[in-house]
Amino acid sequence: MTSVEWVEGRVRFIDQTKLPAAEVYVDTADYREVAEAIRRLSIRGAPAIGVAAGFALCLAANDSAVESTDELNRVFYDAMNFLARTRPTAVNLFTALTRMRRVFEHADPPELPSIRRRLMDEALAIQREDIDACVRIGELGATLIQPGSTILTHCNTGALATAGVGTAQSIITTAARQKKVDRVFVDETRPLFQGARLTAWELHRQGIDAILITDSTAGMLMKERIINAVIVGADRIAANGDTANKIGTYTLAVLAHHHHVPFYVAAPFSTIDKGTATGKYIVVEERSEEEVTHVGGVRIAAEGVRAFAPAFDVTTNELITAIVTEHAILRPPFDQAILRQSIDNVPATVETP
Amino acid sequence: MTSVEWVEGRVRFIDQTKLPAAEVYVDTADYREVAEAIRRLSIRGAPAIGVAAGFALCLAANDSAVESTDELNRVFYDAMNFLARTRPTAVNLFTALTRMRRVFEHADPPELPSIRRRLMDEALAIQREDIDACVRIGELGATLIQPGSTILTHCNTGALATAGVGTAQSIITTAARQKKVDRVFVDETRPLFQGARLTAWELHRQGIDAILITDSTAGMLMKERIINAVIVGADRIAANGDTANKIGTYTLAVLAHHHHVPFYVAAPFSTIDKGTATGKYIVVEERSEEEVTHVGGVRIAAEGVRAFAPAFDVTTNELITAIVTEHAILRPPFDQAILRQSIDNVPATVETP
Repeated sequence: MTSVEWVEGRVRFIDQTKLPAAEVYVDTADYREVAEAIRRLSIRGAPAIGVAAGFALCLAANDSAVESTDELNRVFYDAMNFLARTRPTAVNLFTALTRMRRVFEHADPPELPSIRRRLMDEALAIQREDIDACVRIGELGATLIQPGSTILTHCNTGALATAGVGTAQSIITTAARQKKVDRVFVDETRPLFQGARLTAWELHRQGIDAILITDSTAGMLMKERIINAVIVGADRIAANGDTANKIGTYTLAVLAHHHHVPFYVAAPFSTIDKGTATGKYIVVEERSEEEVTHVGGVRIAAEGVRAFAPAFDVTTNELITAIVTEHAILRPPFDQAILRQSIDNVPATVETP
Repeated sequence: MTSVEWVEGRVRFIDQTKLPAAEVYVDTADYREVAEAIRRLSIRGAPAIGVAAGFALCLAANDSAVESTDELNRVFYDAMNFLARTRPTAVNLFTALTRMRRVFEHADPPELPSIRRRLMDEALAIQREDIDACVRIGELGATLIQPGSTILTHCNTGALATAGVGTAQSIITTAARQKKVDRVFVDETRPLFQGARLTAWELHRQGIDAILITDSTAGMLMKERIINAVIVGADRIAANGDTANKIGTYTLAVLAHHHHVPFYVAAPFSTIDKGTATGKYIVVEERSEEEVTHVGGVRIAAEGVRAFAPAFDVTTNELITAIVTEHAILRPPFDQAILRQSIDNVPATVETP
């Protein structure tokens, strides 16, 4: 199962809003349809959004109606702005757009075929790097898991959230293959049930014992000493390690801290936004009230009742035991660890002429 | 709106599973129907369950087919056992059954009309005491609320959960009438959405600004210093103050502790089970997996995925700032405060000859 890929000149993605009841794949040559899919969470998961955005810009650039570099210029920046407005928090979206823009602006010779080829190469590079990062995060992160572990996870960080095998979930599945995981408690992850619909489904398909719980059950499990580690993904990590992730992550981090349970964040190194000093500068997307007042299109709250539906919360770095990236397991103090890794792993794209 | 009452020889209750979409009242002369309503949460809320159980035993005793005290004996104990098996955690159910049994066993003269009259008097006394306790809890608890407060509550503790105006919710509505409450954040309370369906509805009807959130949003609200107090109800309180309440309460208590937000429990004094030394002896009801895998009868989790659905969790006493009963605001150390109040307020029924 692949969340998003490039197939014969089109973007193919699985509509995650319909899972697990139906596996519906959408093929499109329209970047707007990809953007709309990101906005309504048919494509979701920070790394998958980044990969989808790269491919979407290829769709825009390949538009057969575009016949000059001037036209391409207009279409490309329109598409970039359109995509940038879909979701504000996941940094991978903006990283991908920036990488694609750099390639676009430095393409040599600046002619249609070569620009299009370079954009395609870059989009495929973003995809390939994510696939590789997922594997490496799994390998590194699995070293943190003790045999006989019961793990708690939140939201979805698997194949559906990435171009590869996942971030936090890659650690879980890698450790499971190493026979170190007894079972996984999966937060259902209100309001959109990504844990219930996606993570439990992915783990169950892989033969891992996944037990679904409501988000508010995590506390009593930790109190009863049932959980050995919490592993979550990230949508944006500030330069000091503060981590924005699906709403509810911060609550889990406080619970883990209170119960002395290790709390791990897993994400590609590109999820670290070194231009954002701390979590307080991360913009948290607010979703429609209907995500809380309605379930499956049916109103559960009384008419007139207001709701507050932030998509993410920010976990402060002192609550995080380690951040697992494809390069290394980062430990506190995270600002220094991140700076060190940034110097050791200057991204290839910065060297693009 | 009354959750459960005695109307012309029958029990009338509102079917809470259908709220807020429909206000359906059920009238019944069959105690089994009341028991079934308790089991499927059509009647819910610890105090309301106690009141309903008292009335249900009156229905059993009033059965016109019963013509001798021997027959009544059999019917009464059958009904008691039947009711006792509906839900294990809320102590009010057992307190009500015990009170009714004492009256039954001490009725003088031991003849049908007098036994029936005494049972009815006792059931009405349980109801009246609950109505009075709700008012007094509101008055006492409101003294804890500072002007300009934003309050967080969980599950439903209002008119629907009691025979009166509620427990935790009585504090909120009393403080609101005193103009001390700016707004109330209401946990939706998965899996059965009692917050979304019942509490938000009750508060909105009373003109209180109620904002619905998913249960996992509470953490970020406390982190942002938006919440001034958390107030919850209780299903059973041990002799040391450990409190069983709707799943998710313990998580809120840990969050409140971490963020130095006062955490208040509100309950009639009869919710304190002095025969249970600590929370670890409280039996926590486990509900059907379908409460988590399905929403509104529709499966959201993939086939084959297991779920764990405890109805309650136990909050340890060191996380509780105060317990508000109708007699007094109890402060730590709770074991001593509870013992003192038990001596000062020996229940009238113990003196029944």
